[in-house]
Amino acid sequence: MGDGWDLLTRVKGPRDLDRLGPEQLDRLAAQIRSFLVDAVSKTGGHLGPNLGVVELTIALHRVFDSPKDKVLFDTGHQSYVHKLLTGRQDFSKLKGKGGLSGYPSRAESEHDIIENSHASTVLGWADGLAKANQVLGREDHVVAVIGDGALTGGMAWEALNNIAAAKDRPLVIVVNDNERSYAPTIGGLANHLATLRTTDGYERFLARGKDILERTPVVGRPLYETLHGAKKGLKDFIAPQGMFEDLGLKYVGPIDGHDLEALESALQRAKRFGGPVIIHCLTEKGRGYQPALQDEADRFHAVGKIHPDTGLPIASSGVDWTSVFGEEMVKLGNERADIVAITAAMLQPVGLEKFAKAFPDRVYDVGIAEQHGAVSAAGLATGGLHPVFAVYATFLNRAFDQVLMDVALHDCGVTFVLDRAGITGTDGASHNGMWDMSILQCVPNLRIAAPRDADQVRAQLREAVQVDDAPTVVRFSKGAVGPAVAAVGKVGGMDVLRRPAEGTGGADVLLVSVGALAPMCLEIADLLDKQGISTTVVDPRWVKPVDEALAPLAEGHRVVVTVEDNSRAGGVGSAVAQSLRDAGVDIPLRDFGIPARFLDHASRKELLAEIGLTAPDIARQVTGLVSKIDGRLSGELSAEEIARD
Amino acid sequence: MGDGWDLLTRVKGPRDLDRLGPEQLDRLAAQIRSFLVDAVSKTGGHLGPNLGVVELTIALHRVFDSPKDKVLFDTGHQSYVHKLLTGRQDFSKLKGKGGLSGYPSRAESEHDIIENSHASTVLGWADGLAKANQVLGREDHVVAVIGDGALTGGMAWEALNNIAAAKDRPLVIVVNDNERSYAPTIGGLANHLATLRTTDGYERFLARGKDILERTPVVGRPLYETLHGAKKGLKDFIAPQGMFEDLGLKYVGPIDGHDLEALESALQRAKRFGGPVIIHCLTEKGRGYQPALQDEADRFHAVGKIHPDTGLPIASSGVDWTSVFGEEMVKLGNERADIVAITAAMLQPVGLEKFAKAFPDRVYDVGIAEQHGAVSAAGLATGGLHPVFAVYATFLNRAFDQVLMDVALHDCGVTFVLDRAGITGTDGASHNGMWDMSILQCVPNLRIAAPRDADQVRAQLREAVQVDDAPTVVRFSKGAVGPAVAAVGKVGGMDVLRRPAEGTGGADVLLVSVGALAPMCLEIADLLDKQGISTTVVDPRWVKPVDEALAPLAEGHRVVVTVEDNSRAGGVGSAVAQSLRDAGVDIPLRDFGIPARFLDHASRKELLAEIGLTAPDIARQVTGLVSKIDGRLSGELSAEEIARD
Repeated sequence: MGDGWDLLTRVKGPRDLDRLGPEQLDRLAAQIRSFLVDAVSKTGGHLGPNLGVVELTIALHRVFDSPKDKVLFDTGHQSYVHKLLTGRQDFSKLKGKGGLSGYPSRAESEHDIIENSHASTVLGWADGLAKANQVLGREDHVVAVIGDGALTGGMAWEALNNIAAAKDRPLVIVVNDNERSYAPTIGGLANHLATLRTTDGYERFLARGKDILERTPVVGRPLYETLHGAKKGLKDFIAPQGMFEDLGLKYVGPIDGHDLEALESALQRAKRFGGPVIIHCLTEKGRGYQPALQDEADRFHAVGKIHPDTGLPIASSGVDWTSVFGEEMVKLGNERADIVAITAAMLQPVGLEKFAKAFPDRVYDVGIAEQHGAVSAAGLATGGLHPVFAVYATFLNRAFDQVLMDVALHDCGVTFVLDRAGITGTDGASHNGMWDMSILQCVPNLRIAAPRDADQVRAQLREAVQVDDAPTVVRFSKGAVGPAVAAVGKVGGMDVLRRPAEGTGGADVLLVSVGALAPMCLEIADLLDKQGISTTVVDPRWVKPVDEALAPLAEGHRVVVTVEDNSRAGGVGSAVAQSLRDAGVDIPLRDFGIPARFLDHASRKELLAEIGLTAPDIARQVTGLVSKIDGRLSGELSAEEIARD
Repeated sequence: MGDGWDLLTRVKGPRDLDRLGPEQLDRLAAQIRSFLVDAVSKTGGHLGPNLGVVELTIALHRVFDSPKDKVLFDTGHQSYVHKLLTGRQDFSKLKGKGGLSGYPSRAESEHDIIENSHASTVLGWADGLAKANQVLGREDHVVAVIGDGALTGGMAWEALNNIAAAKDRPLVIVVNDNERSYAPTIGGLANHLATLRTTDGYERFLARGKDILERTPVVGRPLYETLHGAKKGLKDFIAPQGMFEDLGLKYVGPIDGHDLEALESALQRAKRFGGPVIIHCLTEKGRGYQPALQDEADRFHAVGKIHPDTGLPIASSGVDWTSVFGEEMVKLGNERADIVAITAAMLQPVGLEKFAKAFPDRVYDVGIAEQHGAVSAAGLATGGLHPVFAVYATFLNRAFDQVLMDVALHDCGVTFVLDRAGITGTDGASHNGMWDMSILQCVPNLRIAAPRDADQVRAQLREAVQVDDAPTVVRFSKGAVGPAVAAVGKVGGMDVLRRPAEGTGGADVLLVSVGALAPMCLEIADLLDKQGISTTVVDPRWVKPVDEALAPLAEGHRVVVTVEDNSRAGGVGSAVAQSLRDAGVDIPLRDFGIPARFLDHASRKELLAEIGLTAPDIARQVTGLVSKIDGRLSGELSAEEIARD
């Protein structure tokens, strides 16, 4: 580390902060910001949120005694400062294999409690931990940091309602209000803030508030108004306020989240209070980093590798799945007036920015509220529209009940577009979209498309929005989309990607390729070819329901192999196997996919190799199986390799 | 129908209400109550909630023009009056096959929109429908009726936040506040109500409020206080109030929910308002029926067949699964101080009443908030306790993300006890617990127990709470538990329930029995015996993960058959099939379970017959398969029957 970070490098743990005076703490904060810009610009990561919570995190660790006291971060992408203050300062491999996780990680430190990056959970965790303290008679403290945006999630409401029920159970909630959790929607903020003390920090908030007051508020407005309407001229002392008053929660604030002394004072009083307290603190996302502060689109929330001075991206990737979808949506929007779009606080990341610009009255940002995204889609469909809800695959988990009981049970024509499906890698276990094709299998009438390339994204999205009496799902991967993979024929609704060399009849292996794994499947077929094993490769395109033409096709083969970028448990392979059983086709099948375990953060490629989801691995196992079945052992296989099958 | 219902029988549709004067409407309300007590006491059903909404439903249908205007009921069990007013007065087969559904049903009437009985969804539906009206330029009205209890669900909060965002999008929300959605928790209610006008109805509320003020409020208190604290002496005119004020929602209330004139006046003004409005109306659950009003435990929320005068049950069933669990929990609570219990607003229905009495400080009713139930359980477990979250199987759907990303990812020892698993029948599609063993398959480390009888419930619950580093699930059926089914041996962790007659070696069929279907599986084995097919029957007890001893055992058989009371899609059968594939055991398998479609309401027995999940059906299919494999056709099978396999 550079000499410029001398104070920072001397902090080995939270208690080292106790010895620092005010001037040193200011210098430490500056060093942390400089370090973060330097480090994250090299690796990519969440920059803006962490620049905003430097003073807050220092104050938390000075006032509370982690890990005895539990300091919890919602979503977790604002935990970098926490990592730096708890003995983790090697950011050189951030989010990479063997490097620090981009989120809290219990494997890294006893100071980390929640690893989950799904938002709005922290208050529920805190409620449980506080209850455990009460039952076990412990006097440890629990403090939960949650962003204003995450309060739009239903879980947060459920938790607040429960937390407020016990006036004697201590719990400190810090609302980190950076006004930028998503599209700026400050409403009456400027008016309310006018009564507050005019520190530098507040003046800056005021100025910024006025600048953007004219923008159209799309989402979250009620919450913002509630939060900011909560003040009514009172500040910085413990008193119930506004919405929190109604719930019976004590409220402190608003606090300048960059004023260490004010923060510590508020946290100290909250710590002594003996019941649940909310501290409302205003922070500035991207604080101290001009490129972030000047960027109104909040592109510095999470960045790839950037130039530290300008904030400009160093490398840009090719066309990605998301933008292929986003552009087709604009075309569809022009063609059909009944198509509307839904996002759960991720307009830009899911590719709906262009649609929103073209059709501002036909896009709904519902907040971090996947449940509402799905159930309101059922209402929209019943009202005569065709909603397209674009959401990260892993976040659809939270709307499972609504997909099943509202959309599917009511035969609603809603299209769910699942971005970041499959292994995403560096964001760790909770970001991998490896659950959707498993949990959705039991949803009656629902259809799932897994497009293999950009053309298929466009085509299958179009097919999906044609279905007006059942839910459809279009799921695709993260990042750059690969080259087009041409079909050489058609069987039922399935694309044949490759026929065995010897002709169009049967072959040894029927390889069922799912989505983006098509190139890998073709490579497997090449490898099998070299072993003298002939292979048909099909892409079902729609993986649920299983195409009726699959079983008859399978009958002409010795072995069926499925390859999917999803959990093996109950995935496409299981569905194909069941459909073959139901058709009385009892030939051996092997299903390759993601094992049913949580994956550590690493690159997608590293993870695929680790779990054996590569062409050589699969080809070797299939060769072994075919050899075993045929009773003809290939000389290139060792006995152990065959035994593995 | 009797002459006592002359007015009611003349109402063929909502517009017939327009011609009735005040006196006639009062008589109609009385006739509806008399009809409901008479009808529901014969069939069983939701009595209390419907007696409470008689005037409200009449007012809704007089003010709004259904089905052009959309009148939506949350949860739907308070829709009986709505049915009576929309042409459905034959309640003789309520909830039975071919009879009226216990919930709204689109197959029954164009006046029904939402069939789902999962709570807290209505505001999301209403938001979607109102948005569709706006996009399409329709001036139809949307009115959503939601109970106070359902407002504790996170979805309701997400929806309110979105609804409030558009001040110009008309939507009428009626909060049906009967103070009895679950355990009475009125807090400051009596004080607030003192300022209200003293109609008969309000006086009764006040009196009841004082009676029960001393009880310990366990759940929902903040919400109640918010709702009732919202008044501040104002009533019955459009003005923003309390929590709803903070959100920017107009508030009307509180209204006496049994005063037709006041209700109509409020609804008329709300209809004209041109934006989202909340009407807060106070109703009395069980209104007009003394047995219900006098019962503090709210046992008249839903009843079986009862004597209409006394309200006493006509027939009592045997010991049920729920009470076996409930009693074992008390024992466990005595043995282990670290065991705590969680319910989502269903303390009594899930069998936790006795535990709550014995250990009042170790039970948490979180409201209708399954997400919070699961995530707070993760916190409790991390804090050193072992939570047992008892919940209907179908309602766990709503906490899938929290089971996966909070409990399982963090290796938390939390036990989920899933009541009403499998086909429950008369409550219709959304109450069947047929999803859990499918969606939970992909959750890493999670273990699922499916006990077959009362002894196994006790034993497996004990095994489950021993697991402190992973989630465990114990799932059992609804209703009376069957006789004990003895094990005749053990293979791995599996109980052998029956060995083939000829000895302990291999047999034709390995039958894997799941949970309560053990007696049926033994019957299947008997039937196969008569066909000369020998059968081993095993109960794996823990169905996830699949027992390692299963594949070696299967190898000694010609066919493997699985039978489960769960969706076939991705269920236990699929998991067993995958485990056999992984072990290289490629013998034919047939998996029997519930087809992947929604089931109409009917008795469990009728539904099992309808879907072919009976011993004769399964035995016939297995016989066909074995015959086909053996190439020896049984004379008793027709060619078609064999072809079906």
